[in-house]
Amino acid sequence: MLKGHQSWIFENNPKIRAVGTVVGPFEGQGPLANDFDIIHGDLMLGQDSWEKAEKTLLEEAAKLAIENAGLTQEQVNFFIGGDLMNQIISSSFAARTLAIPYLGVFGACSTSMESLALAANLVNSRSAKFVLASACSHNAAVEKQFRYPTEYGSQKPPTAQFTVTGAGASIVAEHGKGVTVKSATIGRIVDMGITDPFNMGAAMAPAAVDTIQAHLRDLRIEPGYYDLIVTGDLSRIGYEIACDLFEKHKIQIDQTKYYDCGMMIYNYEEQTVQSGASGCGCSAVVTYGHLMKRMLKGELKRILVVATGALLSPISFQQGETIPCIAHAVSLEMEDKI
Amino acid sequence: MLKGHQSWIFENNPKIRAVGTVVGPFEGQGPLANDFDIIHGDLMLGQDSWEKAEKTLLEEAAKLAIENAGLTQEQVNFFIGGDLMNQIISSSFAARTLAIPYLGVFGACSTSMESLALAANLVNSRSAKFVLASACSHNAAVEKQFRYPTEYGSQKPPTAQFTVTGAGASIVAEHGKGVTVKSATIGRIVDMGITDPFNMGAAMAPAAVDTIQAHLRDLRIEPGYYDLIVTGDLSRIGYEIACDLFEKHKIQIDQTKYYDCGMMIYNYEEQTVQSGASGCGCSAVVTYGHLMKRMLKGELKRILVVATGALLSPISFQQGETIPCIAHAVSLEMEDKI
Repeated sequence: MLKGHQSWIFENNPKIRAVGTVVGPFEGQGPLANDFDIIHGDLMLGQDSWEKAEKTLLEEAAKLAIENAGLTQEQVNFFIGGDLMNQIISSSFAARTLAIPYLGVFGACSTSMESLALAANLVNSRSAKFVLASACSHNAAVEKQFRYPTEYGSQKPPTAQFTVTGAGASIVAEHGKGVTVKSATIGRIVDMGITDPFNMGAAMAPAAVDTIQAHLRDLRIEPGYYDLIVTGDLSRIGYEIACDLFEKHKIQIDQTKYYDCGMMIYNYEEQTVQSGASGCGCSAVVTYGHLMKRMLKGELKRILVVATGALLSPISFQQGETIPCIAHAVSLEMEDKI
Repeated sequence: MLKGHQSWIFENNPKIRAVGTVVGPFEGQGPLANDFDIIHGDLMLGQDSWEKAEKTLLEEAAKLAIENAGLTQEQVNFFIGGDLMNQIISSSFAARTLAIPYLGVFGACSTSMESLALAANLVNSRSAKFVLASACSHNAAVEKQFRYPTEYGSQKPPTAQFTVTGAGASIVAEHGKGVTVKSATIGRIVDMGITDPFNMGAAMAPAAVDTIQAHLRDLRIEPGYYDLIVTGDLSRIGYEIACDLFEKHKIQIDQTKYYDCGMMIYNYEEQTVQSGASGCGCSAVVTYGHLMKRMLKGELKRILVVATGALLSPISFQQGETIPCIAHAVSLEMEDKI
């Protein structure tokens, strides 16, 4: 049901019945390693291209989520997924393997919550019994497409972010134990005129704040309603800017209750990731791996995940365009009784 | 509401309240010219790149649809759109101009009906009052990205299709006069092993037939229920294959009541378009321009539009992958009373 101008309340309480998370070797060295289902030791995943490796990550995550939900592929009504590759080939080729009716989406790194918001909406309105939602990225595939081949060894400024190799998938269902998808807010494009693709955190922070403001306004709640608000993926630079903007706009968010997915998956002391992590897979694996596990353990009851995306392309950058950014928010709640 | 495995029945009868269609000069020489709102004489649309010209096409179509619906941009809850450009920049940059909460989608040339199906679903479930749905393509931008720069003048085989320069947009609303969106069927990926990107009609035809079969099965209707079934964009080669497949699968479709958008927009006698037309904009402008006008005149009462998409990328082609294809169907009906 529409709430306010751009939010949905899911009054039928759709559930995330199961999830699947698959990551690469570098993510397996980070602080959240224990929260992921599969950690690959080989960045190629036994494939002959980075692109095929990314598709394989997603296929594995999707199959895990379907199995963990106690379903077969034939029972899943729709698959909603997207990624950063041109023409979202990772998701489309995985959709071929899965043979589930498919809705391709693109929101750059906001895809994780775009797909989850739409999946929850379809289940809530009885337009589906089971929906598979996903997002994925692969560091080497993304570097090659958006920047330089990894082998070139180009230097990066400290504002740059490191693309996560990972895929996260979930099954949203009418019934089930576990985490409820309570509401979602679909973001508008915010573009503050930044043109530097090595400073995406700064570009995306205003979009995250705009969507959080819209969410609080549409739902008529205060930030304190949530045990945790998590953006993704602003990383260190963007996180600081978001904090400044909260203060400027008088949004009272307790900084101990505000995290960013881009700052959670790597160990800054030991892993060279500049400002932090990014990529469609980042907020997907942090949410479905780490945050959901904390909710199921009872450590967190209500969280708001605000996935952010920088909707540029190499062509738009080369033509001197600024970076349009977006953020989609989904609120997750744990019922008292399990 | 879910009907069967992969279809939706829109029991609250969402309406297409208004549309906007904008095309380029070549489409303005075709047989449907009178059905389009704006025909540009200049393929650049006064912009300094093909990509910006494509974005401008979409912005104009969207603004027309909003105005024709008697709305302001602020009243539209969501904008659902996509295109063929890497990272769907045409839609994302138009979403920045429009400032409407935005859901980016990608289904290659099936995007027109993917966006309309989702828009109708959101309005039907009271998740939105007004949704803008769109798809667009620009011949020169697409040729440059997927094939060769136009200036190179490379030869094409007779199986190739000509990408439409055009944008189509619609406003779906709870109430209004006009055409009702009655149902939709979301397609699965079908891949018959074709690798030739110059023969997409052949690659996509089986996907169109698969979705039509699913639609008829889910809704328990016969093909004769519709005055017209229109695929898009198979063009001549794909159309013939689809007809053969209908026969093989014993789907009794009267060929006089089966059209393809790719065969409608250009004049084969005078315009060199090989097998016919393609591109996200093709089925969008043929549906919102030509077919809707025929419905409003009372010439057609019930139609099924089956937009087809080839979900390849230049990278997947270069890596020797076959072409995964999809088709999404939306049924439109005209009420007796206007």
